[in-house]
Amino acid sequence: MRYRKIPDESIRRLPIYLRGLLLLSEQGARSVSSHKLAQRVHLNPHQIRKDFSYFGAFGTPGVGYTVATLTKQIRAILKLGVTRKAALVGAGRLGSALLGYPGFRMYGFEIAAVFDNNPKKIGKKFGGITIENTSRLKTLKSRKIGLAIIATPAQAAQETVDRLVDAGISGILNFAPRHLAVPKKVKVITIDIAMEFARLPYYLPAS
Amino acid sequence: MRYRKIPDESIRRLPIYLRGLLLLSEQGARSVSSHKLAQRVHLNPHQIRKDFSYFGAFGTPGVGYTVATLTKQIRAILKLGVTRKAALVGAGRLGSALLGYPGFRMYGFEIAAVFDNNPKKIGKKFGGITIENTSRLKTLKSRKIGLAIIATPAQAAQETVDRLVDAGISGILNFAPRHLAVPKKVKVITIDIAMEFARLPYYLPAS
Repeated sequence: MRYRKIPDESIRRLPIYLRGLLLLSEQGARSVSSHKLAQRVHLNPHQIRKDFSYFGAFGTPGVGYTVATLTKQIRAILKLGVTRKAALVGAGRLGSALLGYPGFRMYGFEIAAVFDNNPKKIGKKFGGITIENTSRLKTLKSRKIGLAIIATPAQAAQETVDRLVDAGISGILNFAPRHLAVPKKVKVITIDIAMEFARLPYYLPAS
Repeated sequence: MRYRKIPDESIRRLPIYLRGLLLLSEQGARSVSSHKLAQRVHLNPHQIRKDFSYFGAFGTPGVGYTVATLTKQIRAILKLGVTRKAALVGAGRLGSALLGYPGFRMYGFEIAAVFDNNPKKIGKKFGGITIENTSRLKTLKSRKIGLAIIATPAQAAQETVDRLVDAGISGILNFAPRHLAVPKKVKVITIDIAMEFARLPYYLPAS
């Protein structure tokens, strides 16, 4: 299937629609209107219709969208059908939480290797996986591991990423609180927890 | 100080500017142009000038903005000057990672209590704090704990939040992968890791 270019903001919402559709499907729903889906995912029905129109899903008046078809289309656009191997770099507390995170597998990610540069950790088991020295990051290409999750301290992140890029990594989930410089062909998604909670007090009453 | 209403999208960027300014200050910079700050934080100079204009910071032509003044203004708008006590609910692996997260303290958050509903965990120490039964969430008001961090499984999150709202909580950082229903006076910021990484494969080459 080929689609026209979908804006990043719409792509950002597709996983949210998908989760809503999976819940509706579990509850036995076969079709859903944009209004009902909007209520479910707490987004705007007009925006939903617009987002779906990018990939040619228009729904039937009075009936709405077929849940199964829409689910399949969104999964195809997000390329969620394949299992992809990922390397976790950083075997600390955040790394441990991520390794146990059930969501990864649900979206086709499999953590297949764990790396750390702390000699005390290398060789130990971490969630069933033996921790390797970061000097071995270069082996990722031959092991067909194309994704990486960065859970290192901020100051180690760029060096790690440079090694990952050299090893042919194409996508990175970055939890280190800093911007990472990468070539254009590599996609980085940064989840910066501090930047999220630093904006919370703005919305709070003066204490 | 009173400012006119600042759009949520600008508020979202203020912590990013703040981090850039703190780094510049450490390096001895006294003033900074919107272009230089833009390069530093990887955002747009035009947008930076617009965001700053909301709170009356206009900079001097040829000189730019005074780093110290701008830092102070942004901290004031984000209300980052006060230390606020937060309760962590969920003493699992994610909770452990959050408890050790240095960023919380940097932005004035102090995790002052930890709760879990697992009898095996209650009474044990967790990062130096004794884990309490979630039945004690109602004590938060009298303990002047006004914020909460939700690190429970998705299915426990809404019940937890209802209790927190009853206990007078005004702000919530939610890591549970679901929407939380709260009264308007309560601000929730959800950090949904799965929704972030579910959009990564879209940007990857077909594997």
